[in-house]
Amino acid sequence: MSVALTENYSAHLLAELRRREPLVQCVTNIVVSGFTANVLLALGASAAMVDGDEEAGPFAGVASGVLVNLGTPYREQREAMPHSVAKANEQGTPWVLDPVAIGALPLRTRLAFELVALRPTVVRGNPSEIMALAGFGTGGRGVDSLSGPETAVEAAHFLASTYGCVVAISGAVDILIDGTRTVRLSNGHQLLTRVTGGGCALGAVMAAFAGLDEDPLLAVCAAVSTYTIAAEIAASRAHGPGSFAVEFLDALAGIDGETVASRVVAA
Amino acid sequence: MSVALTENYSAHLLAELRRREPLVQCVTNIVVSGFTANVLLALGASAAMVDGDEEAGPFAGVASGVLVNLGTPYREQREAMPHSVAKANEQGTPWVLDPVAIGALPLRTRLAFELVALRPTVVRGNPSEIMALAGFGTGGRGVDSLSGPETAVEAAHFLASTYGCVVAISGAVDILIDGTRTVRLSNGHQLLTRVTGGGCALGAVMAAFAGLDEDPLLAVCAAVSTYTIAAEIAASRAHGPGSFAVEFLDALAGIDGETVASRVVAA
Amino acid sequence: MSVALTENYSAHLLAELRRREPLVQCVTNIVVSGFTANVLLALGASAAMVDGDEEAGPFAGVASGVLVNLGTPYREQREAMPHSVAKANEQGTPWVLDPVAIGALPLRTRLAFELVALRPTVVRGNPSEIMALAGFGTGGRGVDSLSGPETAVEAAHFLASTYGCVVAISGAVDILIDGTRTVRLSNGHQLLTRVTGGGCALGAVMAAFAGLDEDPLLAVCAAVSTYTIAAEIAASRAHGPGSFAVEFLDALAGIDGETVASRVVAA
Repeated sequence: MSVALTENYSAHLLAELRRREPLVQCVTNIVVSGFTANVLLALGASAAMVDGDEEAGPFAGVASGVLVNLGTPYREQREAMPHSVAKANEQGTPWVLDPVAIGALPLRTRLAFELVALRPTVVRGNPSEIMALAGFGTGGRGVDSLSGPETAVEAAHFLASTYGCVVAISGAVDILIDGTRTVRLSNGHQLLTRVTGGGCALGAVMAAFAGLDEDPLLAVCAAVSTYTIAAEIAASRAHGPGSFAVEFLDALAGIDGETVASRVVAA
Repeated sequence: MSVALTENYSAHLLAELRRREPLVQCVTNIVVSGFTANVLLALGASAAMVDGDEEAGPFAGVASGVLVNLGTPYREQREAMPHSVAKANEQGTPWVLDPVAIGALPLRTRLAFELVALRPTVVRGNPSEIMALAGFGTGGRGVDSLSGPETAVEAAHFLASTYGCVVAISGAVDILIDGTRTVRLSNGHQLLTRVTGGGCALGAVMAAFAGLDEDPLLAVCAAVSTYTIAAEIAASRAHGPGSFAVEFLDALAGIDGETVASRVVAA
Repeated sequence: MSVALTENYSAHLLAELRRREPLVQCVTNIVVSGFTANVLLALGASAAMVDGDEEAGPFAGVASGVLVNLGTPYREQREAMPHSVAKANEQGTPWVLDPVAIGALPLRTRLAFELVALRPTVVRGNPSEIMALAGFGTGGRGVDSLSGPETAVEAAHFLASTYGCVVAISGAVDILIDGTRTVRLSNGHQLLTRVTGGGCALGAVMAAFAGLDEDPLLAVCAAVSTYTIAAEIAASRAHGPGSFAVEFLDALAGIDGETVASRVVAA
C-alpha cells in the first residue's frame, strides 16, 4: 500500500473528525477513563463512558464508534460488553477490541476469545496480547509486552483473516494489518509508555476515526499517525511524563492534517 | 435580583468556604472522580468519594454537602444514592443532583425521576438534561446538549416550583432559577467543555458552597461565578485543553473574593 | 537507627528500583487509580490495577508488591482483597495496607481489621487511621486527619508488635516504626495534601520499594524519602495544586539517589 496515499488520507480524515465530532462509547477500564475522555475531547471527538449493564447496549446504537477495553473487567462491565458489541454489529457501527493483559489472566482471556469471535472492526494490542488472542502465546505481565512487534505479525495475520478485522500491533513500530495489506508506521515517543492510558486511549481514537470511513485500515492509519505525531510534538516540549501528558492533550487539540501528512514516517 | 448584591455575597461565601473547608460527599461517576476531588481540594474544600452501598448513607451524615451525579450509575452506586439522599434530607444537608445524559437512557432517566422527587437542593444540568428531567424532552446524546440554555427555562421553572429546588442550566450563559428569582451569568470559557468533568465538577463545587449558607440560590451563584471566572483566568494562560485543566486547578486555588466580585458578568 | 545509613541505602534502593522495574498490583480506589499508576510509571516501576474478584488473587502471584487501599471498597473489590493478600502471603510477596478513612465507617473498619490480621508488610495511614486500626480511636472525617502524627505513635507500636509490620504514619513528619526501630523524616510539602491521591499513591510506591529488599523498614524509608523530596522539588516549580501534580510526576521521573541522599531531613 502506498504510504503517500495513506498520509494524505490521514490528513483528510482528521479534518473529517473535527467536522463530524464522532461520539465514541468507551467501555473501558477505570484507570484510564478520565484520560481517554480527555484525549477524545482534545482531538475534537465526543466521549461517553456508558458501560453499565442496562445502558451499554442501547447506547451503542447512538455512538459512531465503540471501544471495548478489558483493563478492569468488573462483573457489571463484563455483562455489558456483549450487549454493546451486539448493538454495534447490528447497526454496522465499528468497534475496537483492546484485550489488555490477556494471556496471563484466564478470566479476561476467555472474555477476549468470546469478544473477538463477534468480529471486531479493529483489534489493538501489544505483541503479547495479540499473540495470546491468536492462541500463539500465554501473554506478558500485565500491560507490558516483553517482545517486539514483529514477533506478533503471524498472529496478527491469523486474527485478521479469521475474524475479518484490522489488527494494530503497538510498539516502537506500529504494525497495521488487514486481510491483504500491511502498514508499518514508526512515529511516536517512549514517553507514551510512561503515562497510564497511553495505549488504551489510542484504542478510543481508533474508534473515533473508524466511525468516519468505510475502510477501517485507513482509519486506523489516521488514528495512529495523528496520535503518535502528537506524542512527538508533546515530547519535544515536555520535561518528564507529567508535563508530557499535558502537552500531549494540547498537541492533540492543535495538530492539523498538514502536520500529520508531513511527519508520517513509514518503517 | 440585584447582581451587585450577588457578586459581593459570592466574595463573602468564597472566604467562608476557605475558612470552613466544607466536606463534600461525591457520589459521582468514575470518569471524573479524580478531577472532581482535585477541583474541591484546589478550591479549599474537602472531598470524599464515599459511594458504596453500605457507606454512602452514613457518610452523608458527616458531610456538609452531597453530590449525586448519574454519569456511571453502576448497580452498587444506584443502590447507594437513595441512602445518601435520605440521610442528607434527614439532617437538612444540602444535596445537588446532576442528571448526566438522561433522556436517551431509560435506566438513569428513571433513577433521576426517583431522585428529583426526593427534593434536591440544587439540580444542575445542560438544557437537554433539564428538559428531560422535567418531562419536556427526550434528552441529548450523552453529555452534550444540542440546544441553548434559554430553551430549558420553562422546564427549569417547572422543576423549581414542583420540587422547591434551585435549577442551574449550564451553557455559554448559566441560568440559575429558584421559585421566584432568576440570575443569568455569562462568565466562563469554551475550554471547560474540552476537559472531562468540566461540568460534573461544578456540581461538587455547588454542593461545597451550598453547605455554607441557608440561601441555596446565592450559594449556587457563588459556585458558578468562582468556577467560571477561574476558567477564564486559566484559559488566558493555557495553550490547549491539557494546560487549561492544570491552570484551572491553580486558578481555583489562587482566586479570591475580590477577583470574583470584580469580574462577574451578568447576562 | 543511623539516618546516614538510611539515606545512602535509600539512594541504593532507588537505583535498584529503576533497574528492576518492580510490578505493583494496585487494589486501590477509583478516585486515585490513574494518578497512582502515573506515579509508579514516572518513578520507573510498573503498575497493574488488577482488582476484580477472579483476577486479583492469581495476579498477586506475578507482582513484586501489592497495595490494598480501602478508599472505595466496592463489593467486588472487597471480595478480591483477601485473595490478593492470601496469594501474596503464600509467595512471600510484600503487601501494603492503606486503611483509608476507617474509624467513622463501619464497613471498611471491619474490612481493615480482617486484613491487618493477615499481617501486611506495611501499614500506611494518617494518625486517625492508624489509631482506629489499633482500636485506639474512632477515626477522622474521611481522608483528613485531625491530629498530628505523634499522637498515633503508641498505636503504631501496638500494630507493629502485634502484626509484625512496618507502620508508616503520614503527616508533616513521617514516622516509620517496626518492632524495634523508629525513623522520623520531615521532607515533603503541604501541596501533596491538595492533590487527590497524594497519600494513596505513596502506598503504591512503598509496595514498589518493598518488592526490592528483605528489610521493609529501609524500603519504606526509601519510598518516603524519594516521594517527599520529589514533592519538594515539584513545589519549588509549581504555582498551585494543578501544576504541582504535573511537576511532581516529572520530579519522580528525574530524581536520582544522590539527590535523595543529600536532601533527606531526619526529624
